[in-house]
This record gives sequence, structure tokens and C-alpha cells, in this order.
Amino acid sequence: MHRVVIVGGGFGGLQAALHLRDAPLDITLVDRRNFHLFQPLVYQVATGALSPGEVAFPLRALFKKDANVRVVLGEVDEVDLSRRVLTVVTGVENHDPMRVEYDTLIAAGGSHYSYFGHEEWRAFAPEVKSLESALLVRRRILQAFEEAELTSDPADRAGLLTFAVVGAGPTGVEMAGQIAEIARDTLRGNYRNTDPAQSRILLIEMADRVLTGFPETLSAKASDALRSLGVTPLTGHAVTGIDPDGVTVEADGAEPEKIPARTVIWAAGVTASELAGKLATAAGLETDKAGRVTVEPDLTLPGHPEVIALGDMVRVADREGGIQALPGLAPVAMQEGRFAAKLVRARLDHKPLPRFHYVDKGNLATIGRARAVGDLKGVHLTGLFAWLTWLFVHLFYLVGVQNRLLVFIRWVASFVTRGRGARLITYAD
Amino acid sequence: MHRVVIVGGGFGGLQAALHLRDAPLDITLVDRRNFHLFQPLVYQVATGALSPGEVAFPLRALFKKDANVRVVLGEVDEVDLSRRVLTVVTGVENHDPMRVEYDTLIAAGGSHYSYFGHEEWRAFAPEVKSLESALLVRRRILQAFEEAELTSDPADRAGLLTFAVVGAGPTGVEMAGQIAEIARDTLRGNYRNTDPAQSRILLIEMADRVLTGFPETLSAKASDALRSLGVTPLTGHAVTGIDPDGVTVEADGAEPEKIPARTVIWAAGVTASELAGKLATAAGLETDKAGRVTVEPDLTLPGHPEVIALGDMVRVADREGGIQALPGLAPVAMQEGRFAAKLVRARLDHKPLPRFHYVDKGNLATIGRARAVGDLKGVHLTGLFAWLTWLFVHLFYLVGVQNRLLVFIRWVASFVTRGRGARLITYAD
Repeated sequence: MHRVVIVGGGFGGLQAALHLRDAPLDITLVDRRNFHLFQPLVYQVATGALSPGEVAFPLRALFKKDANVRVVLGEVDEVDLSRRVLTVVTGVENHDPMRVEYDTLIAAGGSHYSYFGHEEWRAFAPEVKSLESALLVRRRILQAFEEAELTSDPADRAGLLTFAVVGAGPTGVEMAGQIAEIARDTLRGNYRNTDPAQSRILLIEMADRVLTGFPETLSAKASDALRSLGVTPLTGHAVTGIDPDGVTVEADGAEPEKIPARTVIWAAGVTASELAGKLATAAGLETDKAGRVTVEPDLTLPGHPEVIALGDMVRVADREGGIQALPGLAPVAMQEGRFAAKLVRARLDHKPLPRFHYVDKGNLATIGRARAVGDLKGVHLTGLFAWLTWLFVHLFYLVGVQNRLLVFIRWVASFVTRGRGARLITYAD
Repeated sequence: MHRVVIVGGGFGGLQAALHLRDAPLDITLVDRRNFHLFQPLVYQVATGALSPGEVAFPLRALFKKDANVRVVLGEVDEVDLSRRVLTVVTGVENHDPMRVEYDTLIAAGGSHYSYFGHEEWRAFAPEVKSLESALLVRRRILQAFEEAELTSDPADRAGLLTFAVVGAGPTGVEMAGQIAEIARDTLRGNYRNTDPAQSRILLIEMADRVLTGFPETLSAKASDALRSLGVTPLTGHAVTGIDPDGVTVEADGAEPEKIPARTVIWAAGVTASELAGKLATAAGLETDKAGRVTVEPDLTLPGHPEVIALGDMVRVADREGGIQALPGLAPVAMQEGRFAAKLVRARLDHKPLPRFHYVDKGNLATIGRARAVGDLKGVHLTGLFAWLTWLFVHLFYLVGVQNRLLVFIRWVASFVTRGRGARLITYAD
């Protein structure tokens, strides 16, 4: 049977697997983790609005009835394009790396945050991407309020009550908005010596506006919504340093300024999964600055039609020799994953398939309670309506009926009580 | 205003605080964690049935409207009974320990698992008590199945698919039953090389029957239910060694036997919180073998009527100079906490209050899907009816309407699908 190996159980890889499982194929899905993570809601785990198990779904459970689908927990170490074999490190002690042979490879390794060459910042400014990093951020945010309650030094307290989010893309905007709501609503009345509402929440962005993926008028609306929540957007500010005490920013032409902030959260700049580099090296190709490999208009690796690569780790060429401008969003990866499945099926039937075409259904970003912006094919949404659309879309795409119900209940409860039920300070186990 | 300091936000301390908050008192609640943990369901976090945020409730949120209640996150370091002051270590860097003065002290520090003097076993046989330990156990259980899928060595696989639970009290019985259900139902069809249903689940107990807190006929029913789930109860077996490869047991008069088991879970033997020892030392009293201090029939520390101690860390004297036989269960701690509140209120009104009297409403233990035992004042319940009673009682006592709804949905989903939605392998952050 034709062997399809899919690397990555994120949005792209999962769609490919789901749309291939009923085909006469021998499918192997390789992922480091035993669950599919619904990335767009991970920031809500970081703010205690949701619990980890509510935004993740066990991969094995999805395919338990598909005897032709095998799930392998591990990380791709080596790619041998000529022999069509991957070496997968399983992380099990004393276990040799696994050799996984393929006839078709679907590579969907995704991306992770980069620190612009300053990996040392990671220790002081955690990202919000994995569940573990989200729990670390949750602990840092909640612990800062706890420490502010205990200190009697005003400068110390000011630093503890200053939260800086770096990067004003959707995740940064959402994080900043949620921290503002925690400070002003959730923690109201929780402390006796300190007033969380006096917190400063800074949203630092190099570009001249927030949400650069949206039209300018919506960026302006989002900025207004952020300000009304108590967030200070610092656009046109580059981060030039981060240490345990705060963040150093530089506005164009101005002197560097050190802002005391004990909690700094990183939401800027992504780099492609190392898998992209491995594919590129093996195929004799280059990667771009963000580590992405460029694939053909039909998502295949140049010179290797049996390798399909997609999602955040690739750039897709157009027919004129240029690059398609596709945003690094879940809908792109999902459509690419479904296209990959179609391509494999078409080949089984010896049919041709034209190039991948992204259908842009629109772009949504939430800022806070009843505040969001949306750009649906030029139709601009704002306020409550945009927010309800955001809620509905995210519930719809969440994997698992149970997760949808649980998240729905959490959201209703948060809306009514302004509380955040999962705001626990937990430690590494 | 009269200052009441409550140490411990578990079942006992929380009840005391909730029943005192509307009195003209200045209340301080000290706990190491920022949440109340619903201990009886923590084992379900360890088996992926529930997510951590669903069995915990933020303490500050409970008291946000009570301006007279202050929550302090920290651990009691020193107790000075003569000056009536506690020293509390807050865990904040560069922050001096806090001095907390009291007029009445309510000490409810609870208990933790002891390893019968073999602390070195802890590394190989984690307990299920804190959320962190539950997540560690969850990872170990799920990882064992993953490793079994990858190994080709039959002996290695046998060790990976053997799970030993030490201690057949309610927690041990519940853990063993849940692991059996994971192996036989939840993971059915999840693997291609290994059959989780072939797992061995051992429940090791020194006594001659499981659930010694129940009448013998119910112990026998519980054993039958365990066996029908696929658990092997090894009663009359003492554990004499635990290492990374397995557990050594000794039956009366027999040779020690080493059982290869890569996953060993500890659910035997509790020791009182160190707070009991600190109180005893300060008052010139002795503790018993389990580290508990003995209090008067009205729960006060002998010689110190201003100190009330309760829950798992105490033994309560009766009027005849003996000790009341109270089990280490949540209902006992809760009733004692409410009694403590009543005692404080009675003193405010200059009224006397007689001794604490435990009202035994019964005892329930669940074993698995539709299997439980109950002893309600001599009325024995078994099977589905006992199980439904167990579910209802636990939902009822869970703190927070939201948590109740979330847990209810998880349970319904687990019952229908036999799945466990939160079975994620996560790592220390």
C-alpha cells in the first residue's frame, strides 16, 4: 500500500490526515506531542481563562478507528530524500531512532517564536505557544500580583504591576487585552494592600500600528479598544534589551528607554520549524530569513513531487516566479493540509491537480470582552458583533464536541462573573 | 477587631473561613497555594479524566467581596504560642518572612503521603496528592503505553504494561480502577503494535482486604468489582522495595518477590503536616507516629484554648481520656472546620460550646464505570446506585458552579465515549 508519512499534528498536518484516512493508504502521523493543540486559544490558558485540557485533543483518540493510521510520537532527526526515509527520535531511553519510510511525505512542522537573534531574552520574556509555556506565563502573571501585594517598596510594586507584551499581532493584542481585564475586572477586590487596577499594560510594536495584518482603519479601532481596556500601545518602538527587571525600547530617533517591568511576554517574530531547513538542505534549496523553504504552487518541494510541504514552514511560489502572500494563520495551514490530501488522492486516481489556491474567508482578532475586529473580504466588523463572530468561529474549529462545550461554559462564566476559573499558580511537576 | 488566622485552605480551613467571614472578625487565610484543591478528584487528573483547572478554585476569588478576609500565600515557618504570632515564608525573593499575629489560630495544615521511612521511593513511585504530582503520574502512565508501542523486547513491554498501585484505600482503589479502564476502554484501538488491554494492574495492600475503612462484605464486593475491571488485588502483601524497574513485595511467610513494573503509584500511609509538630513542640506536647497532635474534645490545643487544630493533622480526644476514631476524610475536616467557626462565634457571644461531634453520613468509594461501594449508616450500596450516589455527592461538594458543570460534562462524555479528554502528555514547564 502507498505509504504517506505526515509530520506534524497541527492544523495543516491534521487536516491532511483527516482527509486521507479513508483512502487506501498506509498513513503515519508523526508529532512530538500526543495531542493536537488549538493554538489560537493557548493565550487563554496563559491568562487562566481556560484549562490546558480544554484546548488540546489526544491525537490517538482521533484515529483509533482508522487501522491504517499509525501515530508516532517523536521528532524528525534526519531526512533522506533519495532513499525516501525519515529518522525519527522517539525520546524513549535506550530506543534507537526509528526509520520511517514513505512514498509520499507531507511535511507540516509549523513554526516557533524567534527572539531576533537574542535567545537569551527567552528566559526573561517567555512566549505563549506550547501548553507548558502558557502555564509558565500564567504563573508569572499571577505571581507578579501576589508579590505586589507583599512588597512595601513603591518602585518594586510599580515594576511588579507593569506588564509588557512584545509584538502587536493577534496573539500580542489578545494577551495585552486579557492582562488588562485580569487587572481591572478579575482581580478586583482580591487584594488588600495593592490595587491591581493600577497596573500598566504595555503593548510594544516595532511597526507604526497594531495588527498590521488588518486594514489601517481596523488597526485604529483595535488601538482604541485596547486603550479603553487600559492597555498602552507603544507602536514604533523597537525592543533592544530584556532583562529580569524590564525591557529597553527605542523609538525612532529617540534615546533608548528602560521600562521597569517584571513580567515581559514575547509575541513577536516566528521562525519556521527546523524541518524546513532539513528539507531545504536535502533538496539543495535555500531557506528565507524566517527559515522557510519555498515550495511549488502545488505545495511540492522543487525537484521532489513526492514531498509536500505546507503551513508556517513554507512560502508558496506563484506561477509567475513570485511568492504568494499568505499569512501565517490556521486557515491557510488547514486549506493547505486539505489540498495536500486532495493531491495525494488525485495522484492515486492518476488525475492532475492544479495549484493550491487560498480562499481568504477573512481575518478576526479579539481584544477583550465584547471587543474585536474583523475583516471579512473588505467588510469590516467591530465591537460586539465582531467579538461574537470570533467566539463562534473559534468554538466551531475547536476539535472535539466535549472541548467545545467546556470552552463555551468557561466563556459564559467569564462573561457573567468576569472571573477566570483556571487562574491557578502551579509549578513544574 | 479580633484577629483570626486560619492556616490551610483545604476542606477544614476553607469551611472555617466561609463560616466566619460575615462575623466582625479580622481574618487571615494562609495557604501555600492560591487555590482550594478538591482532593477527592485529583486522581482523575492523574488519569486524564479531568483537567487541573476543573478540580481547583482560586482562593482569592472566594473572598473578594469580604474586605475583612485577607489571603496570604505562604508557609508557616515558626509558631510562637506565647506571643501569639506566626512567621510565614512567602516564597518571594528578597522578602522577609511575614509576622502574622492572631488572637485565635485555626490550624488546618492537612497531611501528605509518607513513604514509611523510605523517602527514596518517592522518585520511583509518585503519589497522587498535589496537582503537580497528578500531572507527573498522568505523564508516567501515558508514557508507559507509548514506550510499550515502540519496544520490540517482550520483557521490556511486559514491564511497561505493568502498573502497580501501592495502598488499597479509596485513592488506591480508584487509581487502579481508572488505570484498568484506560487500558481496556480508553486506549482501545489507539496503538498498532501493542495491546493495552493486556496490561497488568496490581493493587498492593498490606492488610488482608481492600478498603479497610469499609465493612468486610463491601471490601469483598470492591475486590470483585476490581477483578472484573482487570485489576489484581494483592492483599496481605507488604512492599519492601521500589526501584525504577519495579516493586518488591513480601507476602506473610513467603520469599520476597520482585515484580517488574515501570509505573508504580504510591497511595499508602499519610503523615500529618509539619504544622502539627510545630504546634506540639511549642505547646510541649507529643505527636503520634503519624505526626499528629492530640487536641481536646473541643479541638483546642491543650493549654491553649486560643488555638484550634483540626483535620488530618490532629487526633481528637474524647471525654474519657481516649481518642475518637475519626477517619482521615474530607467530611471530618469540613465538620471540624465548621465547628471551629462556631466555637469562635460562641466565644464572641460569651457562650459555651460543647465538644465536637462527628456526624458520620457514610462512606463512599468508586471503583470504575458504574461500580462503587457505599456504607451509609449500615446501609450498604453497591453497583450503579452507589456509583451515581458517589458522582452526585462529589459534584455537590465541588467548589464553584462552573467547576461542577465542567466536571459533569467530562463525566458524561467519558461515560458515553469511554474516552478521557485530558489525557495529554505534558512536561515540566
